[in-house]
Amino acid sequence: MDYIVNSLLDTDFYKFTMGQLVFHRYRAVPVKYAFKNRTPNIPLSRLIPEENLRRELDHIKDLSFNNSELHYLRGTNEYGERMFKEDYLQFLKEFRMPEYELEKNGDTYLLEFSGPWSEAIYWETFALSIINELYYRALMSGMSEFEKDAVYAERTLRLFEKIKLLRQYPELSYCDFGTRRRFSGRNQDYVVRVMSEEMPRSQFVGTSNTYLAMKHGLVPMGTSAHETFMVMSGIMYATDEDIRKSHNKVLQDWWEEYGWGLSIALTDTYGTDYFFRDFTEEQARNWKGLRQDSGDPIEFGEKAINFYESRGINPKEKLIVFSDGLDVNEMIKIYLHFKGRIRITFGWGTNLTNDMGFKTLSLVVKTVEAYGNGLVKLSDNIAKALGRSEDIARFKKIFGYESDFNQECKS
Amino acid sequence: MDYIVNSLLDTDFYKFTMGQLVFHRYRAVPVKYAFKNRTPNIPLSRLIPEENLRRELDHIKDLSFNNSELHYLRGTNEYGERMFKEDYLQFLKEFRMPEYELEKNGDTYLLEFSGPWSEAIYWETFALSIINELYYRALMSGMSEFEKDAVYAERTLRLFEKIKLLRQYPELSYCDFGTRRRFSGRNQDYVVRVMSEEMPRSQFVGTSNTYLAMKHGLVPMGTSAHETFMVMSGIMYATDEDIRKSHNKVLQDWWEEYGWGLSIALTDTYGTDYFFRDFTEEQARNWKGLRQDSGDPIEFGEKAINFYESRGINPKEKLIVFSDGLDVNEMIKIYLHFKGRIRITFGWGTNLTNDMGFKTLSLVVKTVEAYGNGLVKLSDNIAKALGRSEDIARFKKIFGYESDFNQECKS
Repeated sequence: MDYIVNSLLDTDFYKFTMGQLVFHRYRAVPVKYAFKNRTPNIPLSRLIPEENLRRELDHIKDLSFNNSELHYLRGTNEYGERMFKEDYLQFLKEFRMPEYELEKNGDTYLLEFSGPWSEAIYWETFALSIINELYYRALMSGMSEFEKDAVYAERTLRLFEKIKLLRQYPELSYCDFGTRRRFSGRNQDYVVRVMSEEMPRSQFVGTSNTYLAMKHGLVPMGTSAHETFMVMSGIMYATDEDIRKSHNKVLQDWWEEYGWGLSIALTDTYGTDYFFRDFTEEQARNWKGLRQDSGDPIEFGEKAINFYESRGINPKEKLIVFSDGLDVNEMIKIYLHFKGRIRITFGWGTNLTNDMGFKTLSLVVKTVEAYGNGLVKLSDNIAKALGRSEDIARFKKIFGYESDFNQECKS
Repeated sequence: MDYIVNSLLDTDFYKFTMGQLVFHRYRAVPVKYAFKNRTPNIPLSRLIPEENLRRELDHIKDLSFNNSELHYLRGTNEYGERMFKEDYLQFLKEFRMPEYELEKNGDTYLLEFSGPWSEAIYWETFALSIINELYYRALMSGMSEFEKDAVYAERTLRLFEKIKLLRQYPELSYCDFGTRRRFSGRNQDYVVRVMSEEMPRSQFVGTSNTYLAMKHGLVPMGTSAHETFMVMSGIMYATDEDIRKSHNKVLQDWWEEYGWGLSIALTDTYGTDYFFRDFTEEQARNWKGLRQDSGDPIEFGEKAINFYESRGINPKEKLIVFSDGLDVNEMIKIYLHFKGRIRITFGWGTNLTNDMGFKTLSLVVKTVEAYGNGLVKLSDNIAKALGRSEDIARFKKIFGYESDFNQECKS
């Protein structure tokens, strides 16, 4: 059986944008990432043999960046001229994936990655792509060749329908955000290639998968994730006030590192209400826009428009990236709602790269500790909250979190 | 039938290193390149249908650099940090191949490329790869599938023998210079891949083919060609003295553009004796080394060692790139002769990428005019001289050319 991940570029581009910032500023911070299956009733450890999982993880530890992959990163200038600096590229040149810890834990796996942040950061997407693909390989393993053909036929027809619908809205733009939850690497490649061939570049604007961006000549997409805020709270953990300040520190660091090019702020780590209290007028004016990743997208967009207008900023000059469990109908609904009022685009994940007719999984790998301090994500959907319950309670207080929106996690 | 060239990177790297210098300094200089078949008794225009040739040339006119190809070039730093500048990359981004002129001319083709130097420069290698591959397709077209299999088997065994011999000399390093005279694009890909898998990178150091360097994660190799000297003579054509000075002007421009990283001087445009009279002690001290492309390689190497020693320069710190019609035995002979006395490496062309058992062709596309002035290459083998006979006579006088070495052109 082929290995699932064969290039260290087969990961989300934001691992590199975050990775460089971490390398420049927080490289030695000790962190721990942990795997979590948020989908109930899927006995992963019984479906996926431990040796298969180890085989895939071990293979990644043998990979290194080749010359052309480093050329590709060095040549990235979509978000600012030559945004990856030589010190970081030199680091990547020598880089090998650090250790992982894996053990069976009842029906699931305990899978953790500990180490300096600048190294441990790269496991998240690889681990998720691998577990997803091994899960679907397990589901498919009992099928005849023809039954497998039928699965791919279903996939193709669903993709066909998506394209037909999207062609009716030529100003609706989107990109692939589906690396971590893809059915398989091959399926993501297929979907991205078809989208890049069938749709104009003004509509299918790129992919978060760096390897596929390189392979198909697309723009690599992505900026940053919750882990930046979460780890920073663990770095500035001395007092509640410091934790509160850590939120804006991330935004300041990011702006210093990349300026306007990558200035899309993720809003929901501690709830959007806190984000809008914390995001200064100057930041709102400078930053390109916001990313919405949980809660109600329409409500979020309305809040954002109000926020900008109340600061005397024209929302039409700002961008919202919606990225929470989208499908075509949801995208069209959001697009029509905000058309002409604020710029929007979509980061389309699971439903793009894993729409085969199978149930999809909600798996995450999240930072759980930095300097031994427990980390927390609240999000705009408390069902998506992460952290020890006492830490969640504490962070709710620190960030004045009041929402009670609670909805089964979209995958 | 598949097209032969499908990427504008499927060309020799030196087209980009020269291309950038030309773009920065001489972009509008009107030049003319012309195709010439130096192999007697090969009726190209009877073997290759004109419509097939046009189909391939026209296809290249439809190509443009994609995003990843531009990343690759932007990310090139093997010869100096980020050596391709944004203005040149922007030019390439918009670049389309200019017109060509093709007509049947008895048994051969008249094939010319006129235009500003910064655009016409890119046709040479494409035209040569295409004519070579169409020629071999014509030779193979009457064969049965099994006869074709036998051709590839012969190729594989010859490659196997090469590798076996080269493994006995682990300090003998070489790279692929065989784009323009390859049997086929697929064969060059095969040979480069096999070499990169079978040989250590210290021995097989890279390929001149930019696309294959990118595809296989190898170092792209190459610096500059005779055309830089030839066109410069047409630019500085006012007096014999100006023409003489044009030789060193090329070296000065090159150093200004790239510094040490790409400082390998091609020595034989007007004969190596003139080169060593013109190459100043300061240049000899600064430049990394020399490239030998005609005449007797051993004699050349001895001259180079004498030259360096007479200037008080240690030849062991200098490098000679031999690139004139090499095969394994020739490389081993040269390597053993100079081992420990001067650093050497090999640019291996036709015999690497076109060793199938067929006769090989000596085809060239050379600059014939700049500003309407006739251009000349003398070389260290007068059989390789190019230019109108009256111009050759004049240039011999200008450059004090006295050699009478004359040998059938190696291909």
